[in-house]
Amino acid sequence: MAYDTQTVREIIDKVRAEDRSSLTAPEGRLVCEAYGITTPGEGLAGSADEAVRLAAGMGGPVVMKIVSPDILHKTEAGGVRVDVHGDDAVRTAYTEIVENARAYSADAAIDGVQVQQMLSGGQEVIIGATTDPTFGKVVVFGLGGILVEVLKDVTFRLAPVDDATAGTMLSDIAAAEVLRGARGAEPVDAAALAGMIRRVSDLITDFPEVRELDLNPVFARPDGASAADVRILLETERVPEPVRYTDEEILATMTRMMQPRSVAVIGASAEQGKIGNSVMRNLVDGGFAGEIHPVNPKADEILGRTAYPSVADIPGEVDVAVFAVPAKFVVASVAEVGRKGIPAAVLIPSGFAETGNADLQQELVDTAREHGVRLLGPNIYGYYSTHQDLCATFCTPYDVKGGVALTSQSGGIGMAILGYARTTGMGVSAIVGLGNKSDIDEDDLLTYFESDDNTSCIAMHLEDLKDGRAFVETARRVTATKPVVVLKAGRTEMGARAAGSHTGALAGDDKIYDDILRQAGVVRAPGLNEMLDYSRGLPVLPTPKGENVVIITGAGGSGVLLSDAVVDNGLSLMEIPPDLDESFRAFIPPFGAAGNPIDITGGEPPSTYEATIRLGLEDPRIHALILGYWHTIVTPPMVFAELTARVVAEARAQGIDKPVVASLAGDTEVEEASEHLFRNGVVAYPYTTERPVAVLGAKYRWARSAGLV
Amino acid sequence: MAYDTQTVREIIDKVRAEDRSSLTAPEGRLVCEAYGITTPGEGLAGSADEAVRLAAGMGGPVVMKIVSPDILHKTEAGGVRVDVHGDDAVRTAYTEIVENARAYSADAAIDGVQVQQMLSGGQEVIIGATTDPTFGKVVVFGLGGILVEVLKDVTFRLAPVDDATAGTMLSDIAAAEVLRGARGAEPVDAAALAGMIRRVSDLITDFPEVRELDLNPVFARPDGASAADVRILLETERVPEPVRYTDEEILATMTRMMQPRSVAVIGASAEQGKIGNSVMRNLVDGGFAGEIHPVNPKADEILGRTAYPSVADIPGEVDVAVFAVPAKFVVASVAEVGRKGIPAAVLIPSGFAETGNADLQQELVDTAREHGVRLLGPNIYGYYSTHQDLCATFCTPYDVKGGVALTSQSGGIGMAILGYARTTGMGVSAIVGLGNKSDIDEDDLLTYFESDDNTSCIAMHLEDLKDGRAFVETARRVTATKPVVVLKAGRTEMGARAAGSHTGALAGDDKIYDDILRQAGVVRAPGLNEMLDYSRGLPVLPTPKGENVVIITGAGGSGVLLSDAVVDNGLSLMEIPPDLDESFRAFIPPFGAAGNPIDITGGEPPSTYEATIRLGLEDPRIHALILGYWHTIVTPPMVFAELTARVVAEARAQGIDKPVVASLAGDTEVEEASEHLFRNGVVAYPYTTERPVAVLGAKYRWARSAGLV
Repeated sequence: MAYDTQTVREIIDKVRAEDRSSLTAPEGRLVCEAYGITTPGEGLAGSADEAVRLAAGMGGPVVMKIVSPDILHKTEAGGVRVDVHGDDAVRTAYTEIVENARAYSADAAIDGVQVQQMLSGGQEVIIGATTDPTFGKVVVFGLGGILVEVLKDVTFRLAPVDDATAGTMLSDIAAAEVLRGARGAEPVDAAALAGMIRRVSDLITDFPEVRELDLNPVFARPDGASAADVRILLETERVPEPVRYTDEEILATMTRMMQPRSVAVIGASAEQGKIGNSVMRNLVDGGFAGEIHPVNPKADEILGRTAYPSVADIPGEVDVAVFAVPAKFVVASVAEVGRKGIPAAVLIPSGFAETGNADLQQELVDTAREHGVRLLGPNIYGYYSTHQDLCATFCTPYDVKGGVALTSQSGGIGMAILGYARTTGMGVSAIVGLGNKSDIDEDDLLTYFESDDNTSCIAMHLEDLKDGRAFVETARRVTATKPVVVLKAGRTEMGARAAGSHTGALAGDDKIYDDILRQAGVVRAPGLNEMLDYSRGLPVLPTPKGENVVIITGAGGSGVLLSDAVVDNGLSLMEIPPDLDESFRAFIPPFGAAGNPIDITGGEPPSTYEATIRLGLEDPRIHALILGYWHTIVTPPMVFAELTARVVAEARAQGIDKPVVASLAGDTEVEEASEHLFRNGVVAYPYTTERPVAVLGAKYRWARSAGLV
Repeated sequence: MAYDTQTVREIIDKVRAEDRSSLTAPEGRLVCEAYGITTPGEGLAGSADEAVRLAAGMGGPVVMKIVSPDILHKTEAGGVRVDVHGDDAVRTAYTEIVENARAYSADAAIDGVQVQQMLSGGQEVIIGATTDPTFGKVVVFGLGGILVEVLKDVTFRLAPVDDATAGTMLSDIAAAEVLRGARGAEPVDAAALAGMIRRVSDLITDFPEVRELDLNPVFARPDGASAADVRILLETERVPEPVRYTDEEILATMTRMMQPRSVAVIGASAEQGKIGNSVMRNLVDGGFAGEIHPVNPKADEILGRTAYPSVADIPGEVDVAVFAVPAKFVVASVAEVGRKGIPAAVLIPSGFAETGNADLQQELVDTAREHGVRLLGPNIYGYYSTHQDLCATFCTPYDVKGGVALTSQSGGIGMAILGYARTTGMGVSAIVGLGNKSDIDEDDLLTYFESDDNTSCIAMHLEDLKDGRAFVETARRVTATKPVVVLKAGRTEMGARAAGSHTGALAGDDKIYDDILRQAGVVRAPGLNEMLDYSRGLPVLPTPKGENVVIITGAGGSGVLLSDAVVDNGLSLMEIPPDLDESFRAFIPPFGAAGNPIDITGGEPPSTYEATIRLGLEDPRIHALILGYWHTIVTPPMVFAELTARVVAEARAQGIDKPVVASLAGDTEVEEASEHLFRNGVVAYPYTTERPVAVLGAKYRWARSAGLV
């Protein structure tokens, strides 16, 4: 795109030189012009003839205003005419304006009359850009008027955006239909709007010193768009660049931390009840096969392992040092860790920023950076790396190996993850506490989990992002191959306030988080329960290859609720073609309802479930199945579970790999049946029609963002 | 309210006599005038003087239009002037209009010039009324323009409404802020708008033959409101009145059905696997203390009870007959049941409307009505009345007695209720299947449960309402004393379509259901899981006496998520006054956060939980507590559960009865701890911050609608 960056550079330098932080309207117009952002035609007429010529060039009605350094109140001076149509009217208006001005102030210097294209009709929209504390440059789009001011119907994207991404913004507002031509109106020029968003995005990307830019209103017409007003503010202070590492650097450190051959425990203790004892015990009891080196100047041996007075005394290479000493000893130990060449320190101790000791935390960070040590924490429960049998935590060991890696900013949430995982037997590759995130944060772990073959799904609880832009860039790449689920706490204003009191983190506007996480391909969980359900369910479900979802149910009542859940979760019930409808009807009673949901009716034998599920799996036009089971004597819960697991396994053996979820309505035996199904690749829940469909919906959200469906 | 009903009567009769179904604009205006609904001033001027007089009487600008039967295209004829201000302009306009008309068509008959008050400025709103198939007459309110057309930002109420209810509609739309004066505008005249809604409501209540009425747009100004356009449609066919019983009649029958002394089982069987055997077995095994009479012409005795060839042969009075015979025998048996004087028939058999046999169902209903028998079902699992040890169902017995009565339209949902109840030990007073609802429906059962001292909370799954108005009237009364939870399936268009295929019921627009159920004081559950959670939790929680909710948490991370949940559920975090803040601070570490959430920080001993929970219970300014527990070695889960249960019990012993809910984050022991808390009056869940707060939110929604908080 050929922009006139030179002009913009000059204007910004001039504004800076004059110590201003905002551009004047004419300066704003020039900046817009330099970036091809259409503004209304405008010119200064020194004579009636010139006014007529200017107006004619603009086409349509014009606004005319006296231009005089001596006349401040133009309207009072009779110096403004709006909606002036045609040559004669322009000529008359020019004369009257100048006469009025002279009458108003006889010795006013009159520069002429400004003639400006009058914009109206069309749809008022807002296009802007701002600098978010978390994400940096973002662009915003919304409809004008009360829609944006009262209903906050706006959408954000991380800049820069291309035309395609800008285009998605037009359909991402609640009132999108207005742009497509509601109430018989012509649709607006979507390409022109998307182009204008992209130009704004390019402008703030090329000139990061632009802090805010507002085009408000922009008149969107069927044949173009013009920005009637522009406001541009500059940064007044320099924003520090966040510290960043290369992916290679991150991977090298994270791999040693997550797959260590040798672990030091600083503050290891033989005394039961001490954190340094719990960590040692968990490492030993968890079955970690690498070396475990307790560090404690007062002990020779702890849990059968040789203890060392300092990490410096440990023979050979150490990959990670787990800290279980009081806060006041941490900084000095981190320096020692660095001198020993250990690349990662896992800091369980609390007593840093979260208790108001921001200075101590800064000292810690500075020391670590100086000594080349990356820090996990402080103020965490530790971490699990299950495929390494590594439980470097003061909680209890966890050994169910599987595909989901979980991280949490809060210890409480980490404990909930552990309890839920244990009770559901959820297969886990890692559970990592992030705590104060003084250094290592979500994007470091994302980078590692992306490369970790044991991890197929990543779930993260977070209250803030230290460097939103780095997170999004990493997440965008990772979500192309693995789903990333995020529970962003502090969604609501009250929640964000509570987050503030917790970590002192500045929570961004949640709408920005929501839009930009989606833009990054992240599946956002609305609450803790959903994060846990998605974590457990996503790795179990194959990726759907299309949007055609079919409900097969034994209970009509479940079918209705499952249909509600389908809509709630953004899924599409397939329109069943006649031949397929006929095929289903062959298996179900005459009073059963084909169509979708397919109601096989209650009281049917196992063979009906089996035949219809098999048909649903084998017909290539169907992409996902939702089963609604109704407990009857004819087809008891475990019979249903076993037949379903078998039919699904048979299909998978033939290469038919479709997601299948199930809702089981019945007496308590449906609990065991649900577990059996889950263990066999079918996401199943008892007593709910919502949860299985929500998990399927999450899988679809990810698959769509990854371009797989 | 003194309305001119005579005029409206005459207009409607005239329209009917002329075989029209809609009123003309002038007729509509007259109807509005008769009901005090302000419309723009209007008059026909035969001279310029008269035009000036008319316009002056209206105040403000006017619109003037030629009135001539010979001029169809008024604008083309130069016969229209808008925005005419002042005597001179009106006079000039009159003259010009008439001259233009003459110039346009020399021999046109000119009746004069219509002078109409020009409405503008103000806010455009829509006020209307319609006849809903489920609820009958409802009024609707929304903002005009794209807000109503694209965003469907409207709200409904059952008519008639009083001024207060009409007033709630103004604040019940998403863009309500616009009416209160957004963007520096003056607020609109809310009383005038509410009054206009009430007048519309009165009109359609007085004249039920008005099928639809639209005032669109209404211009709402700071000093009044005028309906610029009115459209009135009449009913073209007579709507049949639903059959209704008096509350006394309902109670008499329902009490005998729910608390029978003597039960007949029609189609009782000794043969295992038959429904007639399951029902007998459940009645006997369930411990029902009354008489059980098997009816089977081929048996002398079943399960030790004398069998009779027909109900006619049973000695003495029978309160309810439970049917377990094929559909084809039901009608004849219902007649016998009627002749025996049995008031209620519980129809387990299927094969009626749900399988397409609508005629058989109609015959059944006619026969029952003729013989004075009320029907439950057909196509149901039966019913439980636990305090009577009555399990008249083919499912398994259920005996945990408690306060919640549940009904379901679908058998599958009934089984899910049973399974959930059994696994959670939920105390139940009744579980009733409603199936095809050929006769007995939700309002009959509501009336009974209202009077039933064993029932303190009612939960209903429904896909439609046969008589929405009767339901709302009953629910409104019942919800004043007992919470009523409704899971309305078919919420979404797809769900409603599935409901259509299931029961052939016409699902109303869900927004109407949503608004009107709320108007009736009903707590709507978004899904099955929530209905079950509310059913179990609401009877456990005391009714809050105010809106001040306080979160006390050991995990800051839970505090943030709990705050999010508070907002999501329409609750208010109390602003903690300084003295109370100080009192809390006395118990928590200096780096803990007071305020709200109160973050006592992790690692605190039981005494900190105990002291802060006690303070929360004892301070009268606090009305409800949300606890966020974090599993630590210092305060293990059961220690937390026991101390909390004890402190709550102590407070209750002192008459302090506040709702307390808890979210437990931790390892699997938190499951047992949650169960202990639930059994002791604290609604507690592990691994979720959402569910406990959702239950508290449901309790608040009910308490507010009942005027208790």
